[in-house]
Amino acid sequence: MDALHPELLLEQVLATFAGASDPRLREIVVAAARHLHAFAEEVGLQSDERRAGVAFLTAVGQKSSDVRQEFELLSDVLGLSSLVETLSTPEGATLQTLTGPFYAPGSPARRFGESMVERDDGDPPAILRGRVTDRAGGAVAGATLDVWQNASNRLYAIQDPRQPRFNLRGRYTTDAGGRYEIRTIRPVSYSIPDDGPVGALLRATGRHPWRAAHVHLLVTAPGHRPLTTEVFDADSDYLESDAVFGVAPELVLRFEPDADGVAIAHFDIVLDGGPHEP
Amino acid sequence: MDALHPELLLEQVLATFAGASDPRLREIVVAAARHLHAFAEEVGLQSDERRAGVAFLTAVGQKSSDVRQEFELLSDVLGLSSLVETLSTPEGATLQTLTGPFYAPGSPARRFGESMVERDDGDPPAILRGRVTDRAGGAVAGATLDVWQNASNRLYAIQDPRQPRFNLRGRYTTDAGGRYEIRTIRPVSYSIPDDGPVGALLRATGRHPWRAAHVHLLVTAPGHRPLTTEVFDADSDYLESDAVFGVAPELVLRFEPDADGVAIAHFDIVLDGGPHEP
Repeated sequence: MDALHPELLLEQVLATFAGASDPRLREIVVAAARHLHAFAEEVGLQSDERRAGVAFLTAVGQKSSDVRQEFELLSDVLGLSSLVETLSTPEGATLQTLTGPFYAPGSPARRFGESMVERDDGDPPAILRGRVTDRAGGAVAGATLDVWQNASNRLYAIQDPRQPRFNLRGRYTTDAGGRYEIRTIRPVSYSIPDDGPVGALLRATGRHPWRAAHVHLLVTAPGHRPLTTEVFDADSDYLESDAVFGVAPELVLRFEPDADGVAIAHFDIVLDGGPHEP
Repeated sequence: MDALHPELLLEQVLATFAGASDPRLREIVVAAARHLHAFAEEVGLQSDERRAGVAFLTAVGQKSSDVRQEFELLSDVLGLSSLVETLSTPEGATLQTLTGPFYAPGSPARRFGESMVERDDGDPPAILRGRVTDRAGGAVAGATLDVWQNASNRLYAIQDPRQPRFNLRGRYTTDAGGRYEIRTIRPVSYSIPDDGPVGALLRATGRHPWRAAHVHLLVTAPGHRPLTTEVFDADSDYLESDAVFGVAPELVLRFEPDADGVAIAHFDIVLDGGPHEP
């Protein structure tokens, strides 16, 4: 009951969670409270700073809507989303990365090698191809690659009413050998939405809002754990300072021109064969 | 750039803040990011759990409005608000506690010993009296005590249109000897607002939403640091489990009946003589 001693105050806070019926929830809230208190003590947080933090987080919540998830963005720019995906990537499987706000279900099925470019803006063509296997190296036939990418105007189709609805979106399927082939354009970098409180935080801390150029993939196959990952263009800017920390060396691909001048990159994908964890 | 190693990912995140122009902001965001990552690693945070956290914090932000600050409430029930006030209480001064959501400026000036009960509900009368001094023991004459308290129906006047606007609210002034006297009713415990996401968190973790019975005071005097504090009734429930961790032993008062049956408690207040920190 003695609030004069921060450690006793923390003990009192943690004790209140003893009755949580879900042990995992208890573990999470206890660890969160411990770190919150340690943070406040470490920096000697002042009342006005705490209030500014409350105001910031409130603004983040209020900026969020059906089409804008500002808290997800905050999690992304603090590296939390990327950390969680990294931590939960099974050994030997392709690195999981964050999904981000631009995935939308309902993309059209596309044939092997079909282009997902629905409006020709004269952008450099590219092909992304490779094999999907399990961790033992066995081909995964019939896997679905749900792919989304921004256009050269920096925007995804779901952000941009002037693009065809399914531009640079498509669901590809692997063949009997686990192979896939996607025809698209060279990816270009873009800015995350920075007109909200997260953008203000980036500016206040001297950070830029740019993401390295990438193609986003959600790979699913019956009996395998779904995988969200990204492939990055080795020629892109911001590989070392991606605003949401999605870049890892094994996801950076070199696009090499073929005889027709089409840039080709190769990316093999390894799925975890275990059942999808709940 | 190697996101496979959580410590390298964290280094990359912290490095992005190197350009923050305000060193205090940099210190705070770096410490916050460190603790956020340490928390996620420590509990092995899963994607669905991170998303649930994002959804929870979004709901907290969206529940907030001009008359309801749910993030402040979250800060309170995690003990953060109380910790920050404890940390910033000057040595030898009265313990600072959280302000909470029920303070409103504009309470009427009241005379020495005047009752702030504007509707007689037959509640047990009480008197709170004492002296305001500086840390050297010198009387602080002309100090203002802006007082607010909930009624016996558990509600503050600002929450309850059926109470007179200034019921159980008042601004008292110390006399030449630093003395004050407030006439009121015995305080009663009440529940913090628990119909939002914070209430859901309390229920999920087996906690109750009750605050121990108290009277809230904001004490100001020229040349002194403003002080927000609370006094608790020693006969109240929840002294050991106040939902927002405001209770400290030196703030718990025994109300003793005088010859007329009026419960009297004594509370001396010590102000920090330094200038108000910005």
